[in-house]
Amino acid sequence: MKNIKLTISYNGKNYAGFQIQKNACTIQQVLQEVATKIFKQQTDFVASGRTDAGVHANGQVVCFFANTQMKTQNILRAFNSLLPNDIRVLKVAFVAKDFHARFSAHKKVYRYCVCTKKVVLPFETDFCAHYGLPLNFEALQRCVAKIVGTHNFKAFCKSENIEKNYERTIFDFKVKKKSGFIVFEICGNGFLYNMVRIIVGTLLDIASGKLSECCIEQMFETQNRQLGGKTAEAKGLFLHKVVY
Amino acid sequence: MKNIKLTISYNGKNYAGFQIQKNACTIQQVLQEVATKIFKQQTDFVASGRTDAGVHANGQVVCFFANTQMKTQNILRAFNSLLPNDIRVLKVAFVAKDFHARFSAHKKVYRYCVCTKKVVLPFETDFCAHYGLPLNFEALQRCVAKIVGTHNFKAFCKSENIEKNYERTIFDFKVKKKSGFIVFEICGNGFLYNMVRIIVGTLLDIASGKLSECCIEQMFETQNRQLGGKTAEAKGLFLHKVVY
Repeated sequence: MKNIKLTISYNGKNYAGFQIQKNACTIQQVLQEVATKIFKQQTDFVASGRTDAGVHANGQVVCFFANTQMKTQNILRAFNSLLPNDIRVLKVAFVAKDFHARFSAHKKVYRYCVCTKKVVLPFETDFCAHYGLPLNFEALQRCVAKIVGTHNFKAFCKSENIEKNYERTIFDFKVKKKSGFIVFEICGNGFLYNMVRIIVGTLLDIASGKLSECCIEQMFETQNRQLGGKTAEAKGLFLHKVVY
Repeated sequence: MKNIKLTISYNGKNYAGFQIQKNACTIQQVLQEVATKIFKQQTDFVASGRTDAGVHANGQVVCFFANTQMKTQNILRAFNSLLPNDIRVLKVAFVAKDFHARFSAHKKVYRYCVCTKKVVLPFETDFCAHYGLPLNFEALQRCVAKIVGTHNFKAFCKSENIEKNYERTIFDFKVKKKSGFIVFEICGNGFLYNMVRIIVGTLLDIASGKLSECCIEQMFETQNRQLGGKTAEAKGLFLHKVVY
C-alpha cells in the first residue's frame, strides 16, 4: 500500500466543488473514478481542503492509498490520459504513510483575481470577478495590512457555518495591479468557509467607498458577518499552492 | 439608417462557428437576436469572414444597418449587458454607408497557439492545440518564410471546397516561442477555408519530422491537399485583427 500525493490544477467552472456529494459532479468524484480505473481498486482521496463550487486550483494537493507497482511518471500519464481537460495532474510523489494532505499542511496560498477593465475578454471571464466601479488602490493596500496576523475571523466566515475555533493566522497578504487586473494573494495557516471571498468582497466594498475602512476592526471585534461586504464570486478564486 | 461597425471578441468553444445555420448555435445568430432586442428591428450582420466551429476571435469585425439615435457608447453597453460572457463587443463605430466588413478589409491577421509543455493547464486547454512531440523550431522558421508571398493555396484548402480563385497573398508570417508555447501569426489579404489550420498542421508535421520541408513547394506546385499535414485543431486558432 503506497501513500500517493498528487499536485493538481483544475478549472472549477463545471464542478460543484471538490468534495464528493450526491447528485452533483465534483472534482473528488472524477479523481476517484479515474483512480479506480487505473489501480483496479477503490480509493479515498483526501485534499488539503475543499474548494467551493466554481473555485479553481493552480496547485491543490490530494493524497490517497493504493496498492501499485507503477512508477510516478506513469501514474501521472495515466491520470492525465483519463481525466477531462479541466482537471490536470501536475506532479505525483510517493510520500510517508503518515503524510496527510490536510493535517500535514503548514500554509495555504489563495489568489483572487478582479478585472477592472470596462470589458472583460471572453478568455478571462471564467477566471476573474468583474468590478466596474473605480477602486481606491491605496485603501486596498492599507486594508490587506490589517488582515495580516492572528485574529478571530468569525465575521469573515459564512454565517450558517459552525466551527469550534474561528482563530486563524494570516502570514502574508499582498495586493497588486496588473494591466487591467487587481490580484490578491493571501497566505495563511488555514481558512474558514468562504473566508477569502468574504475578505476580498469586503475590501472591494471599502475600496469603492461603500464601506468604511474601520469596518475591518469592527468585524474582528463584534464577530458580526453583517458588517462586512458581499462574498466575492467563486470564479475569481484560485487555491494557488499548499506548503508542507 | 446607420451603418454600424462592431469590433468583437469571442470564445468559439460553444459555437458552431460565426455564420448562422439551422439547428446550431452560432455567433451571428446570438448577435442578431441581441440586436433585435436593442433596436426593435431585424438586422443582418456581415462579418469580415466566417470563423469555423470552435475558432476564437480577438478582433473580429462585423457591420449591420439599423435605424437608431443611440450613441456608440450606449450601443456598446447594451450589447454587453445582453450578450453572453463568451461574446464581447470591444468597440462600436458609425461608418460610411459603403463600408462592408468583408469587402472593405485589406488584411486579416490570424494567430495560432500551440502548447509544447508536457501538461496543458486547465486554464489554457480551450485556447491552444497540444503538440507533445519535440519540434524543430528552426524548421518552422524556414517554413514560415516559404509561405510568405502570392501563391495558389489550393493544396492548403479543405478539399471539398470549390473556389473560383485559390490565389492569396501572405504579407507576413511569424513564429515565436513564448514559455511553453509556440505562437504563429499570419497576415494575408484573405484566407481559404481551413487555410490557416492546414498551413499550421503541415508546418507542425514538418517540424516533428513526419513530413519533409520540400512538401510546401510540392503543395504549391501540385495543388494536392493530400501532400500536406493534418488540419490543426480549431481551438488553437484566433482571428486576431482585421485591417481596413
